[in-house]
Amino acid sequence: MKAVVRDESDAGGSPPRESLLSRAVRILEAFDAGHPSLPVAAIARRADIPVPTTYRLVGDLVDLGLLERGSDRRVRVGVRMWELASRSSEAVSLRDVAIPFMDDLHAAVRQHTQLAVLEGAEVLYLERKSARGAEAANITRTASRLPWHACSSGLALVAHTSVTAQEMLLSARLEQLTSLTVTDPAELRRQLAETRYRGYAAVHGSVHEQAAGVAVPIQGPDDQVVAALSVIVPNEEGRVAPVVPALLTTARGIRRALAAGHVPADRPV
Amino acid sequence: MKAVVRDESDAGGSPPRESLLSRAVRILEAFDAGHPSLPVAAIARRADIPVPTTYRLVGDLVDLGLLERGSDRRVRVGVRMWELASRSSEAVSLRDVAIPFMDDLHAAVRQHTQLAVLEGAEVLYLERKSARGAEAANITRTASRLPWHACSSGLALVAHTSVTAQEMLLSARLEQLTSLTVTDPAELRRQLAETRYRGYAAVHGSVHEQAAGVAVPIQGPDDQVVAALSVIVPNEEGRVAPVVPALLTTARGIRRALAAGHVPADRPV
Repeated sequence: MKAVVRDESDAGGSPPRESLLSRAVRILEAFDAGHPSLPVAAIARRADIPVPTTYRLVGDLVDLGLLERGSDRRVRVGVRMWELASRSSEAVSLRDVAIPFMDDLHAAVRQHTQLAVLEGAEVLYLERKSARGAEAANITRTASRLPWHACSSGLALVAHTSVTAQEMLLSARLEQLTSLTVTDPAELRRQLAETRYRGYAAVHGSVHEQAAGVAVPIQGPDDQVVAALSVIVPNEEGRVAPVVPALLTTARGIRRALAAGHVPADRPV
Repeated sequence: MKAVVRDESDAGGSPPRESLLSRAVRILEAFDAGHPSLPVAAIARRADIPVPTTYRLVGDLVDLGLLERGSDRRVRVGVRMWELASRSSEAVSLRDVAIPFMDDLHAAVRQHTQLAVLEGAEVLYLERKSARGAEAANITRTASRLPWHACSSGLALVAHTSVTAQEMLLSARLEQLTSLTVTDPAELRRQLAETRYRGYAAVHGSVHEQAAGVAVPIQGPDDQVVAALSVIVPNEEGRVAPVVPALLTTARGIRRALAAGHVPADRPV
C-alpha cells in the first residue's frame, strides 16, 4: 500500500481545502451582535458543521488568535481578528477619513448619520453616529446590513453602478420590510434615475414606517462612488430638503480628504 | 491500491490542516498600514509561502471575501474581514463604549488620547483620538502595537496582571527604543508597584524623547482590568499631574457604562 503524502502544494482546488477555509469563515459568521459569545456546540449548530470538526477548528482558530476562549469556556471573536481587519482594509481607511466629517454633520443636523458601502445586494454600514436627541427611529448598527432597495444608502449606491448591475439587482426577489417598502422594479428604476438626476436619494418608511432616509454618494479619488453618507429623519413632510445641502457639503469634504490621501485630525481644536 | 479518502472529520490535528489555516493568517498578516495592497508575489515573499500556494490561497480568500482584488490586480484586505471582526468582538464593544468618553476627554485635555489592551508582551491600540492642536508627538496609530515596557498603557495593564505574568514579561528581552527607555527589570518592577499604588502610570520619553504618556487602567464589570486609557503630553516638568484626574474620571465613566452593558449615545446633544 502506497503511503499517502498530504502535500498541500499538490492539492490545488480540491474540495477538502476549500471547505476547510469556508468552514472556518462559517464558524466566524456564527457570531453576531446578538451572539457575541457561544459554546462550541452552539457554534456547530449555527455553522452547520459536525461537532467534532467544530471542536478542532475552533481549537485551531483559538491558537491563531482569531477566536478567544473565555473563562466560562464560551468562545468569542478574538482581538487579533479586529487587528488584522483594521490595519489595512480600505473600509477602515474610508471610515477613518469620514468620521471627523460625520461628527461635524452630526453636530449640525442632530440626527442619526451613517456611512455605508454596497456589498452585493446589501448595504453594509461602516459607521453610525447616533444621538440621544435624535427624533427618528433607526434600527441600523455599525457592521449591520440592509437590503439595497429598502434604504436611501442603497439607492444612492446602486444609482451609480452599471445598468447591467442594476438590472441584475432589480430582477432578484425584493423583500417587503414594511407596508411602505417599494418592491416594484419599475418604480425602483424610476427612483434610481431620479437619484442620479438630483444627486441624492430619499426613502420614506421602507425600513421603519416612522423614519425617512436621505443619502448622497461619496466619490473616491478616481471619481468612482465608494460609499454613501446618509441621515435618518422623521418620516414627515418637509424633513428631507433641509438636510440635503449639509449631506452634499460633507460628502464633498470626505471626497477631498480621500483625494488628499490622508486622515485629517479628528476635530478642529 | 486503496483509494485515498480525504475525510476532514478524520484529519484531527494533522499538520496540513493546521498549516493551511495558519498560512491563511500569515497571508492576512502580510498587509499593514504601510502595505494596504500588494501583488500576489509580494504577499508570497512577505508571508514566506511558495508563490503557487499563495496564488491558490489568495484565490480562496478572495472567493470568501476576506481579501479583495483591485482593478490593478493588487490584493487588499476585504470589507468582509472588517465585518466579521466588528459584529461581535469584545475589543469592538469596548471601543464602542469608550469612544464617546474619549471624545469628552479629548475635548477637555486637547492632547492625543488612546485606548489599549494587552496582547502578550505588547500593547495593542484599539483607538486613538488625535488633534491638530496637540503639542506632543505620538507615533501610535489605531491597531498598532508597542512593547509593554515602553509605554504608559503597558505599565498600567501589566501592573494589574499576576506576579507570575509580570516576572515572565520582565525576564524577556526588553527593547531600547530611545535613550530614555527603561529596560532594567528592577526599575520596571519598582514602576509597576508605583503604578498600582498611585493608580496611574507615567512614562517619560520611552517611545519618543519629547513625549510622555500617562495611563490609567479601565476595569470591566467583574473588576478585572480590561484596557488602559492614556494621554500623550509633552515630556516637560509638571505636564503629567494635570491630566490624571481627567483620566481617572473618564476611566470610571467607561467602567460604569461597561457595567451597564450598553453603548451610550455618541455625544450629548
